Amino acid sequence: MKIAIAQQNYTIGDFQGNYYKIIQAIDQAILSKVDLIVFPEMSTCSYPAQDLLFYSSFTDSSTDIINQIVKYTNNKISIIIGGIYRKNIHQKFHLYNAAFFISQGEIQIIQKNYLLNDDNNEDNRYFELGENFNIIQFQGQKIAIQIGNVQNIDSKIKKSEIDLIIQLTSTPYAHDLIDMQQKRILNHAQQYQIPIIHCNATGTQGQLVLKGGSFICNSKGQIINEMSYFKEDFCMIETENIEKSIIKESNISSNQISFIHQALLSAIKDFFEKSGFKKAVLGLSGGIDSALVLALAAEALGSENVLSVLMPSQYSSQHSIDDSLALVKNLGSPHIIVPIQSAFNTFEETLTPHFAGLPSNVTEENLQARIRGVYLMAFSNKFGYILLNTSNKSESAVGYGTLYGDLCGAIGLIGDLYKTQVYELCKYINRDKEMIPLNIITKAPSAELRPDQKDSDSLPDYSILDSILYLHIEQNKSLHEIVEQGYDKDLVARIFKLVQNAEFKRYQSAPSIKVSSRAFGSDRKIPLVNKGI
Amino acid sequence: MKIAIAQQNYTIGDFQGNYYKIIQAIDQAILSKVDLIVFPEMSTCSYPAQDLLFYSSFTDSSTDIINQIVKYTNNKISIIIGGIYRKNIHQKFHLYNAAFFISQGEIQIIQKNYLLNDDNNEDNRYFELGENFNIIQFQGQKIAIQIGNVQNIDSKIKKSEIDLIIQLTSTPYAHDLIDMQQKRILNHAQQYQIPIIHCNATGTQGQLVLKGGSFICNSKGQIINEMSYFKEDFCMIETENIEKSIIKESNISSNQISFIHQALLSAIKDFFEKSGFKKAVLGLSGGIDSALVLALAAEALGSENVLSVLMPSQYSSQHSIDDSLALVKNLGSPHIIVPIQSAFNTFEETLTPHFAGLPSNVTEENLQARIRGVYLMAFSNKFGYILLNTSNKSESAVGYGTLYGDLCGAIGLIGDLYKTQVYELCKYINRDKEMIPLNIITKAPSAELRPDQKDSDSLPDYSILDSILYLHIEQNKSLHEIVEQGYDKDLVARIFKLVQNAEFKRYQSAPSIKVSSRAFGSDRKIPLVNKGI
Repeated sequence: MKIAIAQQNYTIGDFQGNYYKIIQAIDQAILSKVDLIVFPEMSTCSYPAQDLLFYSSFTDSSTDIINQIVKYTNNKISIIIGGIYRKNIHQKFHLYNAAFFISQGEIQIIQKNYLLNDDNNEDNRYFELGENFNIIQFQGQKIAIQIGNVQNIDSKIKKSEIDLIIQLTSTPYAHDLIDMQQKRILNHAQQYQIPIIHCNATGTQGQLVLKGGSFICNSKGQIINEMSYFKEDFCMIETENIEKSIIKESNISSNQISFIHQALLSAIKDFFEKSGFKKAVLGLSGGIDSALVLALAAEALGSENVLSVLMPSQYSSQHSIDDSLALVKNLGSPHIIVPIQSAFNTFEETLTPHFAGLPSNVTEENLQARIRGVYLMAFSNKFGYILLNTSNKSESAVGYGTLYGDLCGAIGLIGDLYKTQVYELCKYINRDKEMIPLNIITKAPSAELRPDQKDSDSLPDYSILDSILYLHIEQNKSLHEIVEQGYDKDLVARIFKLVQNAEFKRYQSAPSIKVSSRAFGSDRKIPLVNKGI
Repeated sequence: MKIAIAQQNYTIGDFQGNYYKIIQAIDQAILSKVDLIVFPEMSTCSYPAQDLLFYSSFTDSSTDIINQIVKYTNNKISIIIGGIYRKNIHQKFHLYNAAFFISQGEIQIIQKNYLLNDDNNEDNRYFELGENFNIIQFQGQKIAIQIGNVQNIDSKIKKSEIDLIIQLTSTPYAHDLIDMQQKRILNHAQQYQIPIIHCNATGTQGQLVLKGGSFICNSKGQIINEMSYFKEDFCMIETENIEKSIIKESNISSNQISFIHQALLSAIKDFFEKSGFKKAVLGLSGGIDSALVLALAAEALGSENVLSVLMPSQYSSQHSIDDSLALVKNLGSPHIIVPIQSAFNTFEETLTPHFAGLPSNVTEENLQARIRGVYLMAFSNKFGYILLNTSNKSESAVGYGTLYGDLCGAIGLIGDLYKTQVYELCKYINRDKEMIPLNIITKAPSAELRPDQKDSDSLPDYSILDSILYLHIEQNKSLHEIVEQGYDKDLVARIFKLVQNAEFKRYQSAPSIKVSSRAFGSDRKIPLVNKGI
């Protein structure tokens, strides 16, 4: 039996576009005499459609696509494809996350029979639990169909009865999960002693990057074919050959940073394409964060499509301006210089009578950041460019950023990277050639909002800060558990307090591309007002 | 048997504060010779704790409170109280939304045995499904315990076996659900033919207002005691008297607006108390939205604690300034006038060379709104006042607001009220006396960002707009379903497009107090990038 895997990039709600993509793969498979072609979870509407699933026109469109596909294929090939199955019970919709097995003009509906509720899945908000055990018969073979990431071995699947497992997923990338997720599936294959065809989607959906990386493994849990990560791909296999095929090493790099780099580039490109924009604008401060954002955007969108705005103040050092100019020169990207002094003076003049007798404080620092935000949004609005946010995850965590100032932006590119990962990624980008001037990477980080300000004035070394934050945010560790690992109690308590106090900022910060298992904004739900843990 | 209901207002994570509150009620009950005192769902930690539940120190603290209560009561009274039950299975936490029945020094744990996943509940993200059917024996009576809002009749509960049902909830207010929610419980009592004691929490948790309104009904589903809404309360009942007691009308007003008014006042007060702030600042435009926000905040916090900032531009009409001044005079609240012209001129001067040849457009309108945002945040930062957001739900829906401009604020007071509800509430506030100048209510709404601008230039009448939005947002109706109700197809399509295109703004808008079943921000989850429905 010849099976094709179509690893595709869909757009949420673009039913016609998704349909054309699907039938293109079907055409290709028919030409290659494929018996069965497999598409990812939720191919018709794309994943995650979230509350769009509550609308009948949305679920109707998904059903229409399935019917169009049946008509189009006209029995020339069999298909397994993910979509929405809607049942009307007592005049109420019941939705199922489903796979449609289309063969000989007949549709067999397979319902997801375990529901996931974690950072990437809210199955219980939308779907009913499927009732059936999911086995199809095809060309004398028994094939078990699994939808979504199976967490535990399904005791009903037995080697004696099942010839092959086919998995349909739409799994987002998370650098700290990707290895485990693949290993878990390989382990399942080994435990079942059944080969697995794992078909995942790719493409960026808002903040999520669906990772791709579909693969085929044999009944020993060894990979024989692994598809591209972060882009569309297509492959075919003769099932008789699965056990005989040469075993391959997984492409999941032990060097995480190259995967993060690929994920971000693909995310940026796709975010712009799906939003209908070509050009970006950002504030270039001379610091490492905005430098990295520019380098990434320039690589993804083309240097000429990313406008840097330099907005020096009286506190900006000359090296900040020089370093910024060196960077845009290296990249060959356009820039504008708009000093913020005159705007700052105007605000100060009008505010001074109202602030009489009150000392200068964080207000004046925020004022500078917010004036920059106003300029950036003016360029974004006037030119029709997307404003890129340049905050990193360490800053977001401890609240080192100004709401409506440097927290502005339609999308953050490095908001899910801790500062230590920012350094690592800059070095990776410079691996062949110094794109990002070395001085930007080596100088002490500073917000330059008051004279001689340094991040280290109020924060510990980023390596220590990031380790504590990772334990707290990604690992849900409480204070005493982190202290048990050898960290200073007062320091950990101070960081916990900073994280708690910055919650209101994260409620309104620019969304960011997610590359970890726990991104702020999308994955971590903390009450706006609370007394902490 | 004498039962007390303690309807209390807890703070998320304030375990010690919650504990003191709980034992105060216990003391009061002991003095009154109560046999059994009932507290709401999740009393120990307060609801909704969201991802704080992932931290062991948080769930440990909940357990500690239960143990402290057992010790404190020393067998003098029996207690049913909501909290978290944590079981360690294979070194992994398993959490249950639980009720603890404390009697004679023993603790019986009752696990929530159905999980809810809707706008207010994400049970499946946190909790395991309880296994037991929840009946306790107390003083010869069989009492069924239900945690959270029971959707359907539990077929296991039979009149012959159960004497009383006790429900523990922490249900937020939603003006379009409150009536139905109470009626459903009364219907259940009638169908079971068993009296119900329904104990709900109260108080504001971030954006949510827990409604209170605990009640006791007899086995015919008739209310015999209904407690206060939106504030703490305490009541006692002799169970023998339930069937003999006088039947009362529910206080749930047919006049929704007075309930919305109460909910907002209580929410504002509690939000400030729990956040540790006393004073507020807002931009007063002369329009109806900011006028209403000021009136509400002044009533909740005291007029002297709400600072209005008037920021006229060249497009501001004289009546806007006059109306604003009349309002602050009516309320006796402080104000500051800061014209934005000089800041606008400065930005224009510095931007002009970069904008050469480009026509004036929405950029210049947004610029005015953002300059106002900068001023408001400067006052907020310098004085330590909370900035109140003044957007309404109709505006948020169609994107009539400037990100980082008038969408700023720590909390929105009327962000979950459609414009027609804004009018209704203003009239209600003026029911005895003209607090809000009539001219503010009667004049045509305008953003005053360009000459002679009116909302009606680009939007239909708010009564039509709001009807369409309500069907779309609260009722999840698709375009064709709304058109079937008699609305113009092009208009509905245009509004759908506006709603879709404004999604990126809602990702970063100020959070708002929730008073409906579907508030933006907390209840509606739409992909950042999508092609609509």
